[in-house]
Amino acid sequence: MRFEMLVLGSSSATPMFGRHPTAQLINIHDQLMLVDCGEGTQMQLTKFGVKQNRIKSIFISHLHGDHYLGLAGLLSSMHLMGRNLPLKLYGPAGLMEILELQFRYSETSLRYPLHFHATVTDGEYLLHQDEFVSVYSFPLDHRVPCTGFRFEESPKPPTLLTDKVAKAGVPKAFYKLLKKGVDFVAPDGTVHPWQTLTNPAPAPRSFAYCSDTAASGDYLKSIAKVDLLYHEATFMHEMQERATETFHSTALQAGKVAKVAGVEKLIIGHYSARYRELDPLLAEARAQFPNTDLAIEGRWYVVGNRN
Amino acid sequence: MRFEMLVLGSSSATPMFGRHPTAQLINIHDQLMLVDCGEGTQMQLTKFGVKQNRIKSIFISHLHGDHYLGLAGLLSSMHLMGRNLPLKLYGPAGLMEILELQFRYSETSLRYPLHFHATVTDGEYLLHQDEFVSVYSFPLDHRVPCTGFRFEESPKPPTLLTDKVAKAGVPKAFYKLLKKGVDFVAPDGTVHPWQTLTNPAPAPRSFAYCSDTAASGDYLKSIAKVDLLYHEATFMHEMQERATETFHSTALQAGKVAKVAGVEKLIIGHYSARYRELDPLLAEARAQFPNTDLAIEGRWYVVGNRN
Repeated sequence: MRFEMLVLGSSSATPMFGRHPTAQLINIHDQLMLVDCGEGTQMQLTKFGVKQNRIKSIFISHLHGDHYLGLAGLLSSMHLMGRNLPLKLYGPAGLMEILELQFRYSETSLRYPLHFHATVTDGEYLLHQDEFVSVYSFPLDHRVPCTGFRFEESPKPPTLLTDKVAKAGVPKAFYKLLKKGVDFVAPDGTVHPWQTLTNPAPAPRSFAYCSDTAASGDYLKSIAKVDLLYHEATFMHEMQERATETFHSTALQAGKVAKVAGVEKLIIGHYSARYRELDPLLAEARAQFPNTDLAIEGRWYVVGNRN
Repeated sequence: MRFEMLVLGSSSATPMFGRHPTAQLINIHDQLMLVDCGEGTQMQLTKFGVKQNRIKSIFISHLHGDHYLGLAGLLSSMHLMGRNLPLKLYGPAGLMEILELQFRYSETSLRYPLHFHATVTDGEYLLHQDEFVSVYSFPLDHRVPCTGFRFEESPKPPTLLTDKVAKAGVPKAFYKLLKKGVDFVAPDGTVHPWQTLTNPAPAPRSFAYCSDTAASGDYLKSIAKVDLLYHEATFMHEMQERATETFHSTALQAGKVAKVAGVEKLIIGHYSARYRELDPLLAEARAQFPNTDLAIEGRWYVVGNRN
């Protein structure tokens, strides 16, 4: 089953060198979710062949323009393209105030239901849960209120060991219970523990998104051991002072965070306009955490490598 | 002296086929002005090699998202790139309310002066005048309050006919007066009318911008005889009913408007997402007004052909 992330924008606040402000698309079991929506996101979706009306929910980390200025245009285009499916939107309370003001002046009344849920930054919260995924928000350390997001695949039931199930004489009607962890008791009284008749499902995979933030580590618990971590790396180590001032991270810090959090793989992005070449940023992060890659627009990143 | 217009975005509300929402750059005597600022304008400026901090003023026609959603990002990037030159902004009053709300949540305090002037739609107004250009706003006929803009080159003084000036014995100190239309009286009492000693300057050139609007013709007086008219042509004639409903124009109507207004040249744009190919729109407008061209992103259009 799919669990992957498409980078739509990899730039920090001043877009340069053909890079775009931040946005990422997540495909989990063919359910599409958008994380942040910088200016130009709707054009990037079209460019990379994503049908915008397949997106079911949008998560906005904070109200710096490079993370949400594409939202009003995207919502409006969904409306013009005839969407009627509800859309869930998660972000700071002020986001809805801005959108409502914009729609009031444009006299736009969306033809689809927009369900808005305000995020808060005083702890970790479960924002959304369905059969495919649970999404959590957690506070990051930025100049304005900002949350990261963690996407956890919903646990899957174990699969039946068909040979053993047949041998034990389990009736078909009992299969569902077996998968739910109920032991099978044969007519002769023999107990077959469910574990002996099933293969455990692969462990659920997880993706965490951290942009924008100082690498304070306050959020380490929320990203511990994820399969894929996206962490901003606006600057190189030589600009650490500037990173601290602006509540951003360096590539070195992003690598350290990935190492301490024990994640499987790191993707860095949110590159400052001062860097035309990105390899030095990659090298700096890899020196701390070898399994690191660059966020490249148009590229898909698989979450986990187990199935 | 330069007077030309660069198309940055040519799409109507739903950007498609690599086209972008509306924006145009005007270069008049190397002074840069921006007209409308759809999503992605700052990236388009970079792509086409325009230094955004050379822009001195921005004119926003109305508050439909495809005409202004790139503004907050552009103003913010100007700030981040160290601008300190004042910027003049003209548009509906609500525009400043939206920007102020966005800047409040992003905790942005622009490092350069932003001078906002609200436009109104009850008549034609002179918005701006300097040694190079006068800019007028005039009401268009759209679903929300919307203005067009007319850019008129400031009149230039006549040039001296150096041979005749020398022969008449005009002293250098008198050259300025001659150019201002003062006759020269020689020491012997001979009157040399200034017209006989100068060449008239080329007539001032003008560019008018009409997007978005129904082709009601209410604005004909404001665009009469301009050298270059940009007029929206969202639809083909076969969609005229839809054009009327949505207060837009067809290519046929844009051509008719250009003909009746007696302009020199017409550029059409603001193409609906339903048209991949634009040649049929061009053919339809040219059938009414032969001197028509398509707005193509990245292309410069010279205003007038006199100098």
